[in-house]
Amino acid sequence: MVPKDMVLNEIISLLKGKEKILILPHVSADGDAIGSSIALGLALEKMGKQVRIYFEEEIPDKYNFLPGQHLIEIYDEEKKEFEAEVAVAIDTGDENRLGKRRDVFNEAGVTVNIDHHNTNSMYADFNFVQPHCSAVGEIVYRIIKMMDLVIDYDISICLYVAISTDTGGFRYSNTTPETHRIISELIDIDIDVSEISRRIFETNSYKKIKLMGAAIDTLELLENGRIALHTITNEVMKAIGAKEEECDGLVNIGRSIEGVEVAILLRELENGEIRVNLRSNTYVDVSEIAGFFSGGGHIRAAGCTMEGDIESAKQKLIDKIVQKL
Amino acid sequence: MVPKDMVLNEIISLLKGKEKILILPHVSADGDAIGSSIALGLALEKMGKQVRIYFEEEIPDKYNFLPGQHLIEIYDEEKKEFEAEVAVAIDTGDENRLGKRRDVFNEAGVTVNIDHHNTNSMYADFNFVQPHCSAVGEIVYRIIKMMDLVIDYDISICLYVAISTDTGGFRYSNTTPETHRIISELIDIDIDVSEISRRIFETNSYKKIKLMGAAIDTLELLENGRIALHTITNEVMKAIGAKEEECDGLVNIGRSIEGVEVAILLRELENGEIRVNLRSNTYVDVSEIAGFFSGGGHIRAAGCTMEGDIESAKQKLIDKIVQKL
Repeated sequence: MVPKDMVLNEIISLLKGKEKILILPHVSADGDAIGSSIALGLALEKMGKQVRIYFEEEIPDKYNFLPGQHLIEIYDEEKKEFEAEVAVAIDTGDENRLGKRRDVFNEAGVTVNIDHHNTNSMYADFNFVQPHCSAVGEIVYRIIKMMDLVIDYDISICLYVAISTDTGGFRYSNTTPETHRIISELIDIDIDVSEISRRIFETNSYKKIKLMGAAIDTLELLENGRIALHTITNEVMKAIGAKEEECDGLVNIGRSIEGVEVAILLRELENGEIRVNLRSNTYVDVSEIAGFFSGGGHIRAAGCTMEGDIESAKQKLIDKIVQKL
Repeated sequence: MVPKDMVLNEIISLLKGKEKILILPHVSADGDAIGSSIALGLALEKMGKQVRIYFEEEIPDKYNFLPGQHLIEIYDEEKKEFEAEVAVAIDTGDENRLGKRRDVFNEAGVTVNIDHHNTNSMYADFNFVQPHCSAVGEIVYRIIKMMDLVIDYDISICLYVAISTDTGGFRYSNTTPETHRIISELIDIDIDVSEISRRIFETNSYKKIKLMGAAIDTLELLENGRIALHTITNEVMKAIGAKEEECDGLVNIGRSIEGVEVAILLRELENGEIRVNLRSNTYVDVSEIAGFFSGGGHIRAAGCTMEGDIESAKQKLIDKIVQKL
């Protein structure tokens, strides 16, 4: 096997030697994919390269404040004027995560894969995958340093967004001493940490807030406050006009309540089934509970789908959870 | 004026030379006051000192996981068996913030004041005040390093809590490169960042969640979504059994909504007056609005108290805000 740093040196030589470079973050790009792609794009542009970043779809509004917007395009299959010599996939665990840009990736002269998912399928000519990095932002930081480029104000903002979003604001267990060391260097350039944090962490859609209200309105504390239960009916979803993915994270409201060990969100789907999200705080293995109802997940976060009405789903779940409390 | 580092050297010599050391955080101790006090206490105990930390009142439950609980006492005027040679006030801008422990502070042989408020009144024999530090935790970190003590697992947890809470999870503008450099070193000891963060940032009282629900239920978006308004009536406060301070931060729900510039929380007080909290995101100076109604505050966070009913307070405020949108 080729040592990792040798691969990185080869990638850097490759980027230095080519002129037209295409950067491709994964579909439904998140803060790390967006921030890392733009940071790398800006750095390559400083070296005099022609750079394009193709996104699969519009990026979320909250990232519109990022610099480097002139490098960004929403990919259009009909419009193929940019013939990339190198295509770089960013934060993309396998080729399918490139969506309809998979072809344009493979049509490039050389392909590069820069990622931190330990499940990465090594689909490119050059693959640099670092699972110990909290974010691809950490890898791009290192690439820019190795290319002897200065990390300027704009690149700092992009890397700060990449790393802070993928670590949940330095709260997830993927946060390392190196993460904070890099951030220490990035904010030395005097970027506006509080304004950036407000934009990326304290911005919600109106629908999301209304869903939070609905989740709180239906909150029940059971078993002496050790179980918190939220319910979102199909009727409420329609009244708010919310999409399924906007329910992400609602179960954490119940989980955050003092004394709660297990939080449940029951969501009525259009087909009448009940989608169940489970979270625990310290000792209940919710993947076991979800598994009993043919679902799965992790010890502290799991889910399943159940037949029947909300009341019967609730009873079946509580009966199982009580045995573990 | 005595150079600052000379003062710090004197404080360290003093602590090294004495045996019975009393540590006093400010009243209503927050994460920084609690974490810094315990970290300093544990370090001094490692040097063989007798240490007590007197709190004015019970500390919030969410900090009960902190190590060093054996050093902690709730101050009891009747029980005075510990005759301190040195008393160290922590994170305490002036003596009054010691509450009823002010006397026990002044009765100690020597008094020390370790703080980061730029308004500090320099009330002790030795005052070490560093306004550029995000948290007193940063100063205690430095003291422990200067005393050539190892920052162990327990001290790391305390300093992590001190610094992360006073910077709002590294999001406030007081966060510096040095803040992240220190955190990088603290978490190198492998403390459980995700579990600590959950406990200090993702734990709410049931009443707080119910208040959030009430604030969302009354949410109005006005002026094309540029103003968000929440209302909490006295009736709701009573029904939930909430205390005034539990309304802290509710106005940020409205502030977080995409497109909102000014968020308002109207809270009906028991005497019938209306307490107003105002927040803005990017350009409206809400201290000016509050000032018009005899209140005050900062550009992005201000407040005032108004006579009359909720509806008339709302109209008067909106009329003023609209002129600034």
